[in-house]
Amino acid sequence: MTDEASLREANDRFYRALENLDLLTMDDLWTHDGWVFCVHPGWDILVGWEAVRHSFEQIFANTSWIRVTATAVRIEVFGDIALVSCAENITAKAEEDVGLAVAQATNIFRRTPAGWKIMHHHASPAPVQVTHPFSGTVQ
Amino acid sequence: MTDEASLREANDRFYRALENLDLLTMDDLWTHDGWVFCVHPGWDILVGWEAVRHSFEQIFANTSWIRVTATAVRIEVFGDIALVSCAENITAKAEEDVGLAVAQATNIFRRTPAGWKIMHHHASPAPVQVTHPFSGTVQ
Repeated sequence: MTDEASLREANDRFYRALENLDLLTMDDLWTHDGWVFCVHPGWDILVGWEAVRHSFEQIFANTSWIRVTATAVRIEVFGDIALVSCAENITAKAEEDVGLAVAQATNIFRRTPAGWKIMHHHASPAPVQVTHPFSGTVQ
Repeated sequence: MTDEASLREANDRFYRALENLDLLTMDDLWTHDGWVFCVHPGWDILVGWEAVRHSFEQIFANTSWIRVTATAVRIEVFGDIALVSCAENITAKAEEDVGLAVAQATNIFRRTPAGWKIMHHHASPAPVQVTHPFSGTVQ
């Protein structure tokens, strides 16, 4: 499998783990270093795998249903470091509210003997353009 | 000069160029590739040096005064790629308003024959904690 295909698969696995509220897959997807870096949209920076893992625990505990579709996926490989950027198209339900959001993500992967692992995730709120699915009109 | 010192200097130069509304230094600081990536806080993604340069032209044209102090600077070097993350503490004046903001930045540099160059800048709004300078009380 090419690096690009492996990275696309790892990036997809990350979003499937989010959708499935699946902490064990998160464990497998990330490097567990003390300098692992994560910014969730609107959150303060988290440093170190322990803090990042805890944030996913919190998000999963407060989310009943979430769907994330990655679009505009761009992959650049520089030796053992790879940069994946994408738009995260998010629909989520917390308590009784269903929310729609778009975030822009920078995901940085590191090549390890066990495959590409995430070492840096930076997601930030992006402008949302709402297009009605059938009429094609834009709000 | 160590990689870390060179990167700290290049990162500082980026924020001084912002403060000085200095497009020529931006030209020198960035790689000029078609896949250069930039997200300003709350903006949509920009791809390619031409689009990124144009965004700085727009920002500089609409800013009369800006001060940016980088704090919590973290530098990680992986061969010819380096990851610098920091908090951007921003005070800016546009028209008659003075605004305070904090953004979280991921800056990715690439080693070139001409030194470390920025290839990716992702800045996103971060929570602001206001501390009164003299009393130390927090708003």
